[in-house]
Amino acid sequence: MNGGFVSLVGAGPGDPELLTLRAAARLREADLVLYDALAGREALALAPLARWFYVGKRARRRSIAQESIERLMIRAARRGERVVRLKCGDPFVLGRGGEEALALARAGVPYEVVPGVTSAVAAPALAGIPVTHRGLSAAFAVVSGHAESAYAPLLSSLAPGSATVVVLMGLANRAAIASLLLARGWAGRTPAAIVLDASHVSAASWIGSLGSLRSCTLPQEHPESAGVLVIGEVVSLAEAIVAIPRERLGTPAVAPVLRTA
Amino acid sequence: MNGGFVSLVGAGPGDPELLTLRAAARLREADLVLYDALAGREALALAPLARWFYVGKRARRRSIAQESIERLMIRAARRGERVVRLKCGDPFVLGRGGEEALALARAGVPYEVVPGVTSAVAAPALAGIPVTHRGLSAAFAVVSGHAESAYAPLLSSLAPGSATVVVLMGLANRAAIASLLLARGWAGRTPAAIVLDASHVSAASWIGSLGSLRSCTLPQEHPESAGVLVIGEVVSLAEAIVAIPRERLGTPAVAPVLRTA
Repeated sequence: MNGGFVSLVGAGPGDPELLTLRAAARLREADLVLYDALAGREALALAPLARWFYVGKRARRRSIAQESIERLMIRAARRGERVVRLKCGDPFVLGRGGEEALALARAGVPYEVVPGVTSAVAAPALAGIPVTHRGLSAAFAVVSGHAESAYAPLLSSLAPGSATVVVLMGLANRAAIASLLLARGWAGRTPAAIVLDASHVSAASWIGSLGSLRSCTLPQEHPESAGVLVIGEVVSLAEAIVAIPRERLGTPAVAPVLRTA
Repeated sequence: MNGGFVSLVGAGPGDPELLTLRAAARLREADLVLYDALAGREALALAPLARWFYVGKRARRRSIAQESIERLMIRAARRGERVVRLKCGDPFVLGRGGEEALALARAGVPYEVVPGVTSAVAAPALAGIPVTHRGLSAAFAVVSGHAESAYAPLLSSLAPGSATVVVLMGLANRAAIASLLLARGWAGRTPAAIVLDASHVSAASWIGSLGSLRSCTLPQEHPESAGVLVIGEVVSLAEAIVAIPRERLGTPAVAPVLRTA
């Protein structure tokens, strides 16, 4: 053992204050940080001594192959470095963290998993939507929306109203996702929301219904938008619940809500 | 405005290092902390100046009514105090956080929601089980197991293998929950796990199958056990993935796995 070690760390939804204490401690003593997407950049100040290396899938340049990320981690750990693999949200929620853990295990590199705040819960929460609420929903289901093969098995079986549905990476497929639920018998008037850039100052949400989700247009939409779809009666609470951080209360420009029919 | 404020804070699964930076900041400046269950006690050191008041439902003495908790928060905030309502896991996952937010909104008390690490994801993760994994599961469903009326709508509709199933507060009903899934057509050989005391030094997990879940007995089970059920192919990864914190690696007494047929 030369002290080399990899921490697979959940960065939370983006706001660096939603990193865990353990995540911050690992960043402070890191030699190398391999990070995804936006969360990483804002956490830079927490690891001033480390080399930061962007390996996200959303780069304008070609994304780095999963195998290369794994090779980078393994090689650095074998050199004796403390590596933080900083992943959006939680490392085990739709983030290939399991694959990275298996690669490290196969290579015999010591590692740990540091759970993080998942956007699947925090994005709705910060838009005022509790994924569960007594009398409205005692369950929620989280699914990848990036391809039909990912979301169809769950969404085509889920009985109407039996769970709050949270779709990550599904903004582009929202019409097809809504159609699938409507075909399964979900009511078109079921409240639905799209939460954009949750926990960032640019956060915004669209509130409508499952029926109107199919045709809604978002003003600031772009291909890299980190949008979370939420479908279920709990969305109706967004009007009453204000969940943004204390520091931002009373700043009306923050977290606009785009309401439609 | 007299400066009184309530923060509804997720404490994470129990290990105080899994609190967020914002949660720790709010605790440091709190006048009053109203806390649930175990997580609170271990985080005591983070709020040395505050009055700590236990309002959890698992007390041996009679539990405090939800309305009393809400009244306590509102009264303290109106006195000008900074109140932290520290809730297990995430405040909006099966924790009545939505009800507390609505009560504060109705009372006109300023408040915020600080999302936390939910046990629904972290308990499986710390037992080596990613709730999603490419090729095994692109979705997970989280449900309250405390009563049939809570879990039956979801579990009786969910197609076999269409999502990893995570049941919170369902340890006592595990036989009925397993029977429901088997009746829905889930295979008896589907891997299943029970994760006990996740993130605590007393953590342990039982690994078996949906079929054997019905009859399994746990050595250290007691009514207050915070057990999480996980059902799905991803449970098979627990053998290969070691996810406990760096500090505890190589301490074989930690996180024992009780394997059965």
